[in-house]
Amino acid sequence: MNGKKVVIIGGVALGPKTACRLKRLVPEAEVVIIDQDEYISYGGCGIPYFISGDVNSVQDLMSTSFHMLRTPQFFQDVKDVKVRSRTRATAIDREKRTVRILDLTSGAEEDLPYDHLVIATGSTPARLPIPGVDLPGVTSVTNLHSAMAVKDRISSGKVDRAVIVGAGAIGCEMAEALGDLWGIETHLVEIADQVLPGILAPSLAAIVKKHLEQKGVRFLPGRRVAAIRPGDEEGRLEVELTPDETIRAELVITAAGVRPNCELAKKAGLVTGASGALVVNKMLQTSDPRIFAGGDCIEISHLITGKSVFFPQGSLANRQGRVIGTNIAGGCAKFEGTVGSFSMKIFDLGIASAGITPQAAIQNGFDAQSVLVVQADRAHFYPTQDLIYFQLTVDRKTRRILGAQALGANGDAVAGRINAIAAILPFRPTIEELSNLEIAYSPPFASALDVVNAAANTAENILEGLNRPMEPAEFERCFIDEQDADCLCLDVRSAANAAPFVKRYGSRWLNIPQETLGTRMDEVPKDKRLLLVCNSGVRSYEAMRQLETAAITNTVNVQGGVAALKKTGALPETSEGEKGQNG
Amino acid sequence: MNGKKVVIIGGVALGPKTACRLKRLVPEAEVVIIDQDEYISYGGCGIPYFISGDVNSVQDLMSTSFHMLRTPQFFQDVKDVKVRSRTRATAIDREKRTVRILDLTSGAEEDLPYDHLVIATGSTPARLPIPGVDLPGVTSVTNLHSAMAVKDRISSGKVDRAVIVGAGAIGCEMAEALGDLWGIETHLVEIADQVLPGILAPSLAAIVKKHLEQKGVRFLPGRRVAAIRPGDEEGRLEVELTPDETIRAELVITAAGVRPNCELAKKAGLVTGASGALVVNKMLQTSDPRIFAGGDCIEISHLITGKSVFFPQGSLANRQGRVIGTNIAGGCAKFEGTVGSFSMKIFDLGIASAGITPQAAIQNGFDAQSVLVVQADRAHFYPTQDLIYFQLTVDRKTRRILGAQALGANGDAVAGRINAIAAILPFRPTIEELSNLEIAYSPPFASALDVVNAAANTAENILEGLNRPMEPAEFERCFIDEQDADCLCLDVRSAANAAPFVKRYGSRWLNIPQETLGTRMDEVPKDKRLLLVCNSGVRSYEAMRQLETAAITNTVNVQGGVAALKKTGALPETSEGEKGQNG
Repeated sequence: MNGKKVVIIGGVALGPKTACRLKRLVPEAEVVIIDQDEYISYGGCGIPYFISGDVNSVQDLMSTSFHMLRTPQFFQDVKDVKVRSRTRATAIDREKRTVRILDLTSGAEEDLPYDHLVIATGSTPARLPIPGVDLPGVTSVTNLHSAMAVKDRISSGKVDRAVIVGAGAIGCEMAEALGDLWGIETHLVEIADQVLPGILAPSLAAIVKKHLEQKGVRFLPGRRVAAIRPGDEEGRLEVELTPDETIRAELVITAAGVRPNCELAKKAGLVTGASGALVVNKMLQTSDPRIFAGGDCIEISHLITGKSVFFPQGSLANRQGRVIGTNIAGGCAKFEGTVGSFSMKIFDLGIASAGITPQAAIQNGFDAQSVLVVQADRAHFYPTQDLIYFQLTVDRKTRRILGAQALGANGDAVAGRINAIAAILPFRPTIEELSNLEIAYSPPFASALDVVNAAANTAENILEGLNRPMEPAEFERCFIDEQDADCLCLDVRSAANAAPFVKRYGSRWLNIPQETLGTRMDEVPKDKRLLLVCNSGVRSYEAMRQLETAAITNTVNVQGGVAALKKTGALPETSEGEKGQNG
Repeated sequence: MNGKKVVIIGGVALGPKTACRLKRLVPEAEVVIIDQDEYISYGGCGIPYFISGDVNSVQDLMSTSFHMLRTPQFFQDVKDVKVRSRTRATAIDREKRTVRILDLTSGAEEDLPYDHLVIATGSTPARLPIPGVDLPGVTSVTNLHSAMAVKDRISSGKVDRAVIVGAGAIGCEMAEALGDLWGIETHLVEIADQVLPGILAPSLAAIVKKHLEQKGVRFLPGRRVAAIRPGDEEGRLEVELTPDETIRAELVITAAGVRPNCELAKKAGLVTGASGALVVNKMLQTSDPRIFAGGDCIEISHLITGKSVFFPQGSLANRQGRVIGTNIAGGCAKFEGTVGSFSMKIFDLGIASAGITPQAAIQNGFDAQSVLVVQADRAHFYPTQDLIYFQLTVDRKTRRILGAQALGANGDAVAGRINAIAAILPFRPTIEELSNLEIAYSPPFASALDVVNAAANTAENILEGLNRPMEPAEFERCFIDEQDADCLCLDVRSAANAAPFVKRYGSRWLNIPQETLGTRMDEVPKDKRLLLVCNSGVRSYEAMRQLETAAITNTVNVQGGVAALKKTGALPETSEGEKGQNG
């Protein structure tokens, strides 16, 4: 291994991590990183926070935690790693074990020999197949150049209105970045019918949508951009949407996903998968065992579905970088795959997820059951408590946990619960294991029976048939939108809490407080489908059990109760008489 | 099962939970809860927050999340559960299946028949075997009566000085409660040599100790109370300590642990274990299968050591209550044991733990290695980031994770990491599984390579012999206390960061910034043991690897770096020139 030559193509996340790990294990290795850009080793995930102003400068994204700029000189001095920036790899000769490189400044070409090659070429924003995407003012925000250009444009004061194309993670983060500090009128266009399509369950997506709208973002679901045209001489653009609408804006940000950069590897005959990304084994070797690959240009195994997926994440790139470094040094480290965890902040909401959504579960052939619970993030008597909206997906047949997602105002508390789920998912946990999962308890940081346990218990009750759930969206459809005459809402909260709704919905909204239900069974209509509600779904579940004793079984329990119905926008947030949150 | 009679002795946490779960499954069951107190079903863990004033009234601790008082009437109306408060169970006749009860108000006695009995008698504070423990002003704080008495005494303005006996979780929480809002001069007496003995690793305990002292609490380790005497006519007490010291105080709180209440069960011939608590199987049946037990009066299996332990926790009581309810209803739920997770807030520190400490690991025969890392709780460039001090314990032989503990200013972020560890511990994870654990990533909520992963990677490096760690306490002993002439501190941070220390420690503190080390190897003394430091232990690890290439191997890496040394009080926090935190 002494003096082995290692060439790494790509210098953002995985490349530098691989280089540093390798050099710590084998100081005498000759490691060179090639990157066509002038900027290397930066925190790309921090770009939305640079644009919003939370992070002051791009230098912060390029610095170590001890405030040293990660320049090529830094890598030379501190890591003994050579970085050649503004240098493009143009061809790989696997026979000769060389990489042809082009110096973008001088135009000089050269062949670099390697014993091991690492492909860390990352990804590129998907290009929208529409006219006008190359106009000035239309941009993605996935590298520092575009990030700085966008921030310059914004801070010049010339952007009053912006259109973001794609309501995925980057699109939503950018909506906050533009709206929060800069006060830009922001239109968020999404071809699917919800925000964060494919990655967030509809019940939680409805909450995010409402929150975005409360913060002034205009969300346009079910729309796509047909064309972008120059609007006037001041650089304004006309964004034409289908169905019919045209928005005039000074800035258009495209955030329609990313594609792996695998052209170079493909040309060299390395195997790619259905997603277009490189196929690797668990040691992160490509189809040529001397060539490793990782980060945003590979497919990895999804530990829930068992399928190969393209799941670009800076955190995974870092972990994979360490694995590759170890393996080139002669070790045998493995990267088993992903449970697909992520988090994000959108204005005042923290959101986190691990595993798959109920929709993805169904698509993957699971007999999926979705569960929604709403509970305080700490003891309900502790003053700083706030609600967590927690969605759990389980497989009915095997009782396996398939995924969990949550959101709330205290993002650290939300992420902390999802971290627990992310941790156990590789071990294929069952509902029972989640039911007794030991969230670290004390009143300032958890409930005695935490929201994670409550979600598992609710899942069990649903699977046992004790709790017949109705999702907030289904309640909205049948009770609010269609005003289904066969449905009656039975509100088991106090009279004061129910009063505004009784007033609004009249005889369709019946109030019998749960503590009086035992003696008032004869008031419950037998000829209607009863939609049971309380504040969170707990008392209404208890009411369902009580009604069963009187042979009243045409009931469903509205998951998350009035808390979820208000938060998703199904019910108005107008009723002043209400108290309490968790019942 | 129809109409089966179930008697539950004890109405605080497990008893009510069992009753409610059972009634939801079997509405026709006749369930009665007996409790000798007038107060039932309250959040006992909230008592310190009631005393501090964070929680306004004891009613808050006795209320549901929807603000309904959990009185006997509430249980009757809402749960169809009969509660007989101020009623003591005096004998169990297992042959006849009856419980003899005594009405403490009327003095009437009665035999209650049962099909199933649940023993939920909880625990009682350990009584100190010293003169004066019954004097007015000496009290524990484990029930609402004593809590209200303490708060009355404090709020009357008569308490200027207090002594707390025992620096366990309750003792430390009470130190905050008395000091924070009330400004009482508080002396915390502990027989062991650290705060939170037995439950917190010494490195973290040193941080908590310093924090308590910064908040004005006087910590007296290695002391015990010999006697308490009436001090004067105004109710002041004299607290005599060994070794010699006498403190005059208006309030003495004893917090020396709790003992399971098992007299009744023992009299009835039920089997207890070494701890004095009841022995149960996984279905939580006692040695009499008709009699279940749970909560603070049973032994449970520790999932790390495999031993039976007495681990009273409100959160476990709630989970066990559900298991018992299910099993009495004819189900087959199991409680496998505990990983010993807990959290607590002490002034501005959030603390959380799962598994066992390094000391406990050694006592239990593991080949334990302790690891300390210090890292930001979110991306280091994100503005609200703060440091987490993270301690990991692993077994060298099997590479199994035995425990983790952490603390920091953002308690939710701290607890969120420990929740992930608590979640996987039952699955006997290895270092490698922690290394790739998918903490939900985005810059506002985690690092790309999170502190959890960093701790696992550090553990691996230590086990591989790449990183030779030194604990902060060991640094303090040899460098500060003993001024060992064979030791030299090599500070690889910037000159500005190191300057105050070079000034203070002279030639014993050598500064060679890590980026210059490669060219300055000849300046490194070869005849000394080098204690390598940076801000966190990361750059100093890299320096260790570099020095190895020059055959300089008499080196150790100070874990947690200057950040940990300052936080534990080993080094003064005086140096203004310093910047950065994670290097």
